[in-house]
Amino acid sequence: MTDDRLRRQMEFCLEADKEKQIMRHTFKSNGIDRENDAEHAWHMAVMCLLLGEYANEPVDMLRTISMILIHDVVEIDAGDTFAYDEQANTTRQEREQRAADRLFGILPPDQGEKLRALWDEFEAGETAEARFARAMDNIQPAMLNFATDGKAWTESGVRLSQILKRNEITPKGSKKLWEHSLGTFILPNVEKGRIIDDK
Amino acid sequence: MTDDRLRRQMEFCLEADKEKQIMRHTFKSNGIDRENDAEHAWHMAVMCLLLGEYANEPVDMLRTISMILIHDVVEIDAGDTFAYDEQANTTRQEREQRAADRLFGILPPDQGEKLRALWDEFEAGETAEARFARAMDNIQPAMLNFATDGKAWTESGVRLSQILKRNEITPKGSKKLWEHSLGTFILPNVEKGRIIDDK
Repeated sequence: MTDDRLRRQMEFCLEADKEKQIMRHTFKSNGIDRENDAEHAWHMAVMCLLLGEYANEPVDMLRTISMILIHDVVEIDAGDTFAYDEQANTTRQEREQRAADRLFGILPPDQGEKLRALWDEFEAGETAEARFARAMDNIQPAMLNFATDGKAWTESGVRLSQILKRNEITPKGSKKLWEHSLGTFILPNVEKGRIIDDK
Repeated sequence: MTDDRLRRQMEFCLEADKEKQIMRHTFKSNGIDRENDAEHAWHMAVMCLLLGEYANEPVDMLRTISMILIHDVVEIDAGDTFAYDEQANTTRQEREQRAADRLFGILPPDQGEKLRALWDEFEAGETAEARFARAMDNIQPAMLNFATDGKAWTESGVRLSQILKRNEITPKGSKKLWEHSLGTFILPNVEKGRIIDDK
């Protein structure tokens, strides 16, 4: 009754559900439970929709949101690599490439290639859309860390230099939002000792 | 330092985080924990991106996904109303209208009006985009119910007539996906006694 194309699409849709089990370090705004990859991607997509006017360059909103929606799907196999875990980040790329092969391979080839290309584009961060999507990927957790009195920063002993390094790409997506994130979310938490001031 | 427009946008972005606390009846594919509104909206958006080719009429994909991303935001104030709780559904509309006034009112007026219009469009279900978005809203949980051996259906004693009534709108968005949902997700669970056969 169901053709092979739809069967593969539905298989991917069901497999994607596992993203709801991949936990991140960031706490939700209640400061109690951590968010997972699916919640994070949804939150980034909503923020992208509302904050797109601050992109340095005009962006194709559908492509940017599509990228955001699927950017973490590889973590179903590869797991979430904490941004400031330097050891785990050395093996991240290889683990995620293998995951991309398997997961996007579930889809009909034309769609699998399209999603893989979107994911590669996000990872490379070289188009206006990828730069803005990656800015959202940094600003969304900074906002939540700010809202929870820096809880995730404090518990991991995060240093300002690490945050600045990770955020080198953020102003490439949006100068305005990076200034906001630095001035409102980050620096006041350095002042309060919740981020280690090593600069 | 931050202008009023960005302040209001960020306030809404942070408020939206509360959607991650609004629990639905549907179980995730692990059959153990239930999904929340944010996870549900993300999952629907991914499915929309992949299954858009089955819409009865061509749809503007960005508008459809935008609608999906924010369709449950009013539940932050109004709570989730279980699809088959007939009593709660009589007061749903009024509770949700009040919530929409408050929540979309946080945003700068132009964006608040735009999101409110998207939400109204989804609720009315009269455009091709809204019909397809609402088809996703029914097919996503049917897929998860199927994947968890009908757990959410069984525990609530859901009747086939209720499912068919709720799904009257589904074939208006996509005949093909409704046939798949009925044939693959729903009827086999009637056969197995997990949905009460009252037809």
